[in-house]
Amino acid sequence: MPKDIPVIEQILSANDQIAEQNRERLAKNRVHTINIMAAPGAGKTSLILSAIRGLRGIRRIGVIEGDVASDVDSVKIRQEGIPVVQINTGGGCHLDASQIRVALDQLPLNEIDLLFIENVGNLICPVGFDLGEQTRLAITSIPEGDDKPYKYPSIFHEVDALVISKIDLLPYIPFNIVEYRRLVRSIKPEIQLFEVSVVTGDGLAEWLEWLKTLSPRT
Amino acid sequence: MPKDIPVIEQILSANDQIAEQNRERLAKNRVHTINIMAAPGAGKTSLILSAIRGLRGIRRIGVIEGDVASDVDSVKIRQEGIPVVQINTGGGCHLDASQIRVALDQLPLNEIDLLFIENVGNLICPVGFDLGEQTRLAITSIPEGDDKPYKYPSIFHEVDALVISKIDLLPYIPFNIVEYRRLVRSIKPEIQLFEVSVVTGDGLAEWLEWLKTLSPRT
Repeated sequence: MPKDIPVIEQILSANDQIAEQNRERLAKNRVHTINIMAAPGAGKTSLILSAIRGLRGIRRIGVIEGDVASDVDSVKIRQEGIPVVQINTGGGCHLDASQIRVALDQLPLNEIDLLFIENVGNLICPVGFDLGEQTRLAITSIPEGDDKPYKYPSIFHEVDALVISKIDLLPYIPFNIVEYRRLVRSIKPEIQLFEVSVVTGDGLAEWLEWLKTLSPRT
Repeated sequence: MPKDIPVIEQILSANDQIAEQNRERLAKNRVHTINIMAAPGAGKTSLILSAIRGLRGIRRIGVIEGDVASDVDSVKIRQEGIPVVQINTGGGCHLDASQIRVALDQLPLNEIDLLFIENVGNLICPVGFDLGEQTRLAITSIPEGDDKPYKYPSIFHEVDALVISKIDLLPYIPFNIVEYRRLVRSIKPEIQLFEVSVVTGDGLAEWLEWLKTLSPRT
């Protein structure tokens, strides 16, 4: 094949190379980074806000917000007095490592312990793109239904942790949470599982405790 | 540019060409086709099931199910005695016209009045791909929150109709439905809006009535 025709493998490895550079840069600055992936409306921003409020004075947090359009989420983060960068992808269905590299230039990395990257709302595309994070987290919400591991298996394979969100809605929605836990663990036995409601506060203590262990203060 | 290097414009137009062929074929068979697009868990399959049950004996329905993986949805459709074809995209985040062409070969088109295509659960990717449908429908559910038109404007621009689903959950979730209607209509003034709960049955009569007007029996 002629040298000047790019092939998919080269494009992917370009992303992986930049992701590796991001990871080294973050490690050098002692920033622990979590890439949060979920469907639209699963509660990504609310979960980040719960961490900001629950860890205030305990960990220094920064946020990169990924959206197709708008800055509604980053405005909420900014109101908490937290450094935040918004990435608008246009029509893009996921963030990539080069977008994160640009965003890192805008953040005071030496003043951040824990960096959340809120990926574009999507259960499919973000899974294939390493951003340079140390930890990959998915959120699935109770109203999305308990069949998601069958229909979107990759994301459950690929993440380190899963937050099952909106558990306050369990009384109103048919959702077999015992079976759901079993199914998720059958795909990924070592996954960290959290069951959380930001409305009632249920499960938030475990979620915050885990975030502290990820980013020990030095 | 050498002739043998495909460019994106040509690929897109190949999809559009096949979509046009699908549309002609469907018209010739007097099949009205609705492409349903929504985030994971918005209630696409439940809404299709409501139409199957509500229009039994009134319209003959067929279904094409698009999923990254699994056949859990098409099994539910099949249990209703309805012709259904499952398309599994592997990692693909949307259906395309050539997949639909193959699916149409598997369906008894002359015995179908109304064909639902359930696209892959995704608010972003499906919008750019004409499948040959006559009508484009989006579903957004109450638990996804009322900020979706800001964050995913394209889908609201591109559809003919929007079903706001799971309205039975309004008492438990902060969601300003008056503002949501206004916002959606500011993006697309002529959009058909339905507010539905398949649990309580609210709004189903209007939804079924509209489906009947789309596919007048000949």
